[in-house]
Amino acid sequence: MKRTRICDLLGIEHPIIQGGMTWIANAELAAAVSEAGALGIISPNAAMRLEGDVVENLRSQIRKAKSLTDKPFGVNLPVQIPECKELIDVVIEEGVKVVTTSAGNPALHTPRLKEGGVKVLHVVASVRHAKGAERHGVDAVIAEGYEAGGHNGFDELPTFVLVPQVVEAVSIPVVAAGGIADARGFVAALALGAEGVQMGTRFVATHECVAHQNFKEMIVKATDTGTMITGRKLGPTRGIKNEFTAKLLEMDKRGASAEEILAFIGVGRSRMGQLEGKVQEGEVYCGAIAGVISEIVSAGEVVRSIVDSYSRVVANL
Amino acid sequence: MKRTRICDLLGIEHPIIQGGMTWIANAELAAAVSEAGALGIISPNAAMRLEGDVVENLRSQIRKAKSLTDKPFGVNLPVQIPECKELIDVVIEEGVKVVTTSAGNPALHTPRLKEGGVKVLHVVASVRHAKGAERHGVDAVIAEGYEAGGHNGFDELPTFVLVPQVVEAVSIPVVAAGGIADARGFVAALALGAEGVQMGTRFVATHECVAHQNFKEMIVKATDTGTMITGRKLGPTRGIKNEFTAKLLEMDKRGASAEEILAFIGVGRSRMGQLEGKVQEGEVYCGAIAGVISEIVSAGEVVRSIVDSYSRVVANL
Repeated sequence: MKRTRICDLLGIEHPIIQGGMTWIANAELAAAVSEAGALGIISPNAAMRLEGDVVENLRSQIRKAKSLTDKPFGVNLPVQIPECKELIDVVIEEGVKVVTTSAGNPALHTPRLKEGGVKVLHVVASVRHAKGAERHGVDAVIAEGYEAGGHNGFDELPTFVLVPQVVEAVSIPVVAAGGIADARGFVAALALGAEGVQMGTRFVATHECVAHQNFKEMIVKATDTGTMITGRKLGPTRGIKNEFTAKLLEMDKRGASAEEILAFIGVGRSRMGQLEGKVQEGEVYCGAIAGVISEIVSAGEVVRSIVDSYSRVVANL
Repeated sequence: MKRTRICDLLGIEHPIIQGGMTWIANAELAAAVSEAGALGIISPNAAMRLEGDVVENLRSQIRKAKSLTDKPFGVNLPVQIPECKELIDVVIEEGVKVVTTSAGNPALHTPRLKEGGVKVLHVVASVRHAKGAERHGVDAVIAEGYEAGGHNGFDELPTFVLVPQVVEAVSIPVVAAGGIADARGFVAALALGAEGVQMGTRFVATHECVAHQNFKEMIVKATDTGTMITGRKLGPTRGIKNEFTAKLLEMDKRGASAEEILAFIGVGRSRMGQLEGKVQEGEVYCGAIAGVISEIVSAGEVVRSIVDSYSRVVANL
């Protein structure tokens, strides 16, 4: 199995990172991924009640993960959330060594994280943002293509074209994300110049993930055309096609305003879809690669399957 | 360099196909690509006047290509154009052995082409269409992702997720298209299960292509965010961002009807952009990979560069 700068940077065996999926990147999942030699990531609001205290929730998730593995794991910090400063306090106090930052300006918190001894990987969706993140001192960038589930960049650049261009633009290591679920995608990402991959949807459909069983089964049943982008007025977001996306599409067609769309989405819509299992009414973030995922397995099996198939895929080239 | 079923099927040395770009896939380009051991493709309207006779134009282009190379080359047939039947007559009469079909139902013309001894590769953008094409007897499919320049499928599936799913769904060889311009993309496509690649934009920026110099220079100058999708109401189409796409975007924002948009586009808009060099006023089809293309070279150099770099990319895996 390939070792890259990402392995050395993060102290892991295989350059595979689990996405920090909102509501569902829980301690048990992160610990299982890390135990398998990859890097598990905790979302601060993992498994949390809608009105819960995200700061205390993160502390409790981190402590649970520590009780399950001695290997390194990380935390995802959406930069723009109001509690971000307090979440960083928890990360540093609890001795977490890796943070992936997303959805915001890396200038805001990178210096403090680095002072706290934390490695920072920032999610980017264009060359300009990758260069900015490097300038602000992050250790690596995660170049996330338009194939990814959840919120995407406004430029809608797919992984196949985003990764090589980001690799050419920066000197720090680049992790590819979006559209990857197996060894084929892993090897393709490395061929494009990435030094590792981040996978979200593949890790949702695992036993350890706290995502609702309805969501996991929806991923397994999805075909190539099972997901779509909605919300281009607010920010393109990829999810499984359901009653919720049909309603958004209809609103978009009749020219509904951004305000009207926001009011319809309301609060907790993605928790509803992903954690509560209301997979028609709720928002169900899901990557475009769902169609290749045919089984709910353990998180360790996901990692081992890539490690085991890696040489076979390369040998066929 | 890798040999695949595509090499045997088409009688070529390297599994690389040049896209049959409307207006600009001319005989000189196709012949140069074929001379380099790949497969050149002629567009029936290559270099043609707007009011020209497309059937006679194709015959003349084929004869010119035959005068320039003894190696096999092909013709692209957009299935839906009114003259398709007559174009097939010319293909068979002139002894062309390969046709790529696109933009229409493969059931319509595949039997006649096969009877005429022509190998048929059909362009698809989803698993369903790939299965349909295989059922109708085509020899291979070209799985074209949303990264590609020009008209794309309504499902907007990127290459990274489309290719492995099409490969799983059919037994015939799959050629990957969309987002590929160099050896990195070639190897990535093969890792995803493709047995060859088709490249359009990379071959536009060559000395032999009849595309206007303004268009070629625009490709060289393009950055990662240099192209965009317009026309989602009519069919998603990727082109270079210019005054034309800005106008389409503005019309889309104010909710212009499909009829109004069609009237604005009018006739010959893509000829204007690509052949006449009116690169602001015209439509300039271009792939999302344009940002990695930094030089206008010969078509033979494009092929040789992939062949020469192939082993180095694989060795780094």
